Amino acid sequence: MIVAAAAEHAGRPALILGLEGESDPGIAEFRHAWVKWGEIGRIDALIREHGATEIVLVGTVSRRPDFRSIALDPLALKSLPRLAGITLGGDDTVLAKAVRFFEGLGHRVVGAHEIAPELVAGADALTRCTPSRAARDDIALAMRAARAVGDLDAGQGAVAVERRVVALEGAEGTDAMLARVGELRAAGRLSWKGRMGVFAKCAKPRQDLRVDMPTIGAQTVELAAAAGLAGIAVEAGRVMIVDRDEAVRRADEAGMFIVGEGAGTVADS
Amino acid sequence: MIVAAAAEHAGRPALILGLEGESDPGIAEFRHAWVKWGEIGRIDALIREHGATEIVLVGTVSRRPDFRSIALDPLALKSLPRLAGITLGGDDTVLAKAVRFFEGLGHRVVGAHEIAPELVAGADALTRCTPSRAARDDIALAMRAARAVGDLDAGQGAVAVERRVVALEGAEGTDAMLARVGELRAAGRLSWKGRMGVFAKCAKPRQDLRVDMPTIGAQTVELAAAAGLAGIAVEAGRVMIVDRDEAVRRADEAGMFIVGEGAGTVADS
Repeated sequence: MIVAAAAEHAGRPALILGLEGESDPGIAEFRHAWVKWGEIGRIDALIREHGATEIVLVGTVSRRPDFRSIALDPLALKSLPRLAGITLGGDDTVLAKAVRFFEGLGHRVVGAHEIAPELVAGADALTRCTPSRAARDDIALAMRAARAVGDLDAGQGAVAVERRVVALEGAEGTDAMLARVGELRAAGRLSWKGRMGVFAKCAKPRQDLRVDMPTIGAQTVELAAAAGLAGIAVEAGRVMIVDRDEAVRRADEAGMFIVGEGAGTVADS
Repeated sequence: MIVAAAAEHAGRPALILGLEGESDPGIAEFRHAWVKWGEIGRIDALIREHGATEIVLVGTVSRRPDFRSIALDPLALKSLPRLAGITLGGDDTVLAKAVRFFEGLGHRVVGAHEIAPELVAGADALTRCTPSRAARDDIALAMRAARAVGDLDAGQGAVAVERRVVALEGAEGTDAMLARVGELRAAGRLSWKGRMGVFAKCAKPRQDLRVDMPTIGAQTVELAAAAGLAGIAVEAGRVMIVDRDEAVRRADEAGMFIVGEGAGTVADS
């Protein structure tokens, strides 16, 4: 929706296609249509009716679809062999193949960051608060850990506190990992005073940013704040802050920083 | 206690010193004494009274001590500058320094695996069930992930299912990580049929096995079984199975494998 608002603001009115059971009902505020898994022909037709020249894929799918909820339409049936190929392999390649599929239908797929570049973190602090020297050490370590996690294709984030890696993201996702750090601290398994430690998020090495750009948002800030962290570091140019104004406002309120860190590779660390 | 039983069996009666609030009350079945954090002089005297020639440090400490529970005795006070040095730095170095401290008092510190070598996994299957070809792929990936986790000094374990890394161990520890995989599966966030996937555990690259050998046990098997995993792989020669007979019995019952995997390094993967 923020991407849609940015597009409208730029004079490029958007049509939002929501995936039933996955997308935010709030898309109803915009020109929109709901689609089911497998309604490929209908998606194709909706895009053409709208006269869209570019497709943006935003967000992630939290569950693999239940076979009973899939409604294959004629174009989907015709494309079945190619679609079957898409569902094999890791999550990354599913999305990369989905892009190629839509491109094969003649659509141009662009990244949300191309439509709304102001939502992508640059290489500096977005907040009033900036990292202390101790936080700088935790940023470097958490970024190194997040890159290792991405290299394993396991996740995109990690938490380091007082020069110790305390959490690595797997299938549970960023929010559950941050909640875990809060729980470990509440249980006395981790302890520190005041705000310490950093949550870092990076894109995976081979991640297609057009379909699967890593994101943080106000909820990420809330969870990091509840865990007692000093701040958040995101890979500059490759992580989107979906509700930037609100996220920064909450970080400022909590006395936390959000910083973009220069793009690096695992080889650097 | 298994180490104590092994020592007695080998004609080397042991004295168990339990750390109050941490050690298993079951040590009362053996010759034992309870000590508090900071009772260094008392520990030293108990060891000398018993006529012990070797010290084995077994298990891990789950919480950093509350300052109010520390009872510094005269030897501890005298050693305070050295003890203060021990508490700085990461967890690994605390233990390595503790070994040097006890060695400095004239004691010989040996590893539990030297007293009870039969508890260390070799490079083969301990169970009736052996890994399928698909499980072999998951073993390789989970071992690679576990080594990356160890390289970050974050933890010792990882879980891979169907060639995807789904969980990486941080400060929450092995049990909580395995429980998380079970929860993600119960919630439909991960799904597979039958037993699939592997939990792998390795020593960290610079881990002092004398004080901090990675362990698995019957509870690990239970949690891996509850998560729906096909089996457990441990680094051969560097991971101890604390209650080997019971752990293997439960794995056999569940139709799971436990295998030792040839020692490798991160550079191999």
